[in-house]
Amino acid sequence: MTDIRQAPIGVFDSGLGGLTVAREIMRNLPTEKIVYFGDTARVPYGNKSKETIIRYSRQIVRFLQTQEIKAIVIACNTATAYALDVLQEEVDVPVIGVIESGAHMAVDSTRNKQIGVIATKATISTHVYTDTISRMDPEINVISQACPLLVPLVEEGWIHDQITDEIIMRYVDDLIEHDIDTLILGCTHYPLLRSEMRKLLGDRVTLVNPAYETAKALEQLLTEKDLRNIMPKAKDEPTPYRFFVSDDSERFADFANSILPIDVKSAKIIPIEEY
Amino acid sequence: MTDIRQAPIGVFDSGLGGLTVAREIMRNLPTEKIVYFGDTARVPYGNKSKETIIRYSRQIVRFLQTQEIKAIVIACNTATAYALDVLQEEVDVPVIGVIESGAHMAVDSTRNKQIGVIATKATISTHVYTDTISRMDPEINVISQACPLLVPLVEEGWIHDQITDEIIMRYVDDLIEHDIDTLILGCTHYPLLRSEMRKLLGDRVTLVNPAYETAKALEQLLTEKDLRNIMPKAKDEPTPYRFFVSDDSERFADFANSILPIDVKSAKIIPIEEY
Repeated sequence: MTDIRQAPIGVFDSGLGGLTVAREIMRNLPTEKIVYFGDTARVPYGNKSKETIIRYSRQIVRFLQTQEIKAIVIACNTATAYALDVLQEEVDVPVIGVIESGAHMAVDSTRNKQIGVIATKATISTHVYTDTISRMDPEINVISQACPLLVPLVEEGWIHDQITDEIIMRYVDDLIEHDIDTLILGCTHYPLLRSEMRKLLGDRVTLVNPAYETAKALEQLLTEKDLRNIMPKAKDEPTPYRFFVSDDSERFADFANSILPIDVKSAKIIPIEEY
Repeated sequence: MTDIRQAPIGVFDSGLGGLTVAREIMRNLPTEKIVYFGDTARVPYGNKSKETIIRYSRQIVRFLQTQEIKAIVIACNTATAYALDVLQEEVDVPVIGVIESGAHMAVDSTRNKQIGVIATKATISTHVYTDTISRMDPEINVISQACPLLVPLVEEGWIHDQITDEIIMRYVDDLIEHDIDTLILGCTHYPLLRSEMRKLLGDRVTLVNPAYETAKALEQLLTEKDLRNIMPKAKDEPTPYRFFVSDDSERFADFANSILPIDVKSAKIIPIEEY
């Protein structure tokens, strides 16, 4: 490829949740190509150790580099929390994660300086949101809650469901006690529960979706580095989005089509352990 | 080792649920040594494909063989469903799974020939319990239900919990409609919900725990093959149980100590992808 600006953006996640980030990139940067990798064989990352997440992330980056990507988006909070620093040092293309942008938006949004964060056990245990927000404004109080059941509930499809409402309420109960006015949805699956959370939490609490903020940060990054694809898409050009997974996921097409504004037929399986 | 009968039994699972099988082996065969491997880096298996489960199982068996095991117990319903046949062909020590024994017990137990099976999505999709039971008694009707939320609920520790009761009732509702008198707990995590299920289903439904039946089948197998360890344990002999995992699991010791009749301090981490 002669013009690096026409190269695709690599987006990866532990599984399918990162498609919520891909969706925002498609909306915000419609001329950009995307190579998406979902580690469906080894999902979920949320209960795994730092060493394992870094090893998995390195393998995925090595695969993405075979696709000649011009930038990498870690569309997974857990992988961002554990592996962003390492990858930024090791990889020769720009790498961004989902946490910095989400934290920034939350800091801008809060009025009473009480911010809640819900995420996987792994993400919460790193204190990454708390540390990032404290650096931005030391007066802000961050209240964190690990919610390990929310990903399985989304994957089970129990989205608009009385039981899911009860589980959400149990998880956010302590955050409400702390009078939060802003809640970061710190796992890429959680935006799929956004309307339930809106219903349960009411208008007083601003819900921050890091996927949306990450797409805006990516736009800024590409512009700064002169990496934006400024070529308009040709009419007969094939779809600029390619999808890869590490295990056959019969639900991939269903899930992708329920999230993305395009029609996705299937994803190619990659033996990721060999990278 | 000169006497193969003193060699350990290899027991493996996708994670920690298989400890319920190890527990029954400890109780039933107290002179036997055990090497337990839990694939905590790649848990859960229940949503993965056949090809992936077979690849993972082969890696684990190669690791167990470095421990000079005399027999292998697949303490995981999903791995039994997908990989038992393959491993029995490829491996030069006896291999048993958890499904045959559980199915046998259920067939012996049912009076009205209506048997329910609850398990992971992967196990249910193989129809392995239905096929196995039909071979034993074609008149029996097997009603299956995948319960993907039960493993995360157990791992979250919400065992005696109103929400867990509601989720169990939703899953078993259709089985009760079919008037089952026997229910197979077709995932090694589910025996930890046994008392909740007993409370919800009452005395009319017999709960079958394949872990218990598997320990009895193992005893029979070892006896037939002249592989029983008949040496009594020496007083100062170190603990005959060793535990390995593929990822650091801070919950391992807690979980193991809540299940096993012995005191477990930790598990050694094995880079299973390299086997």
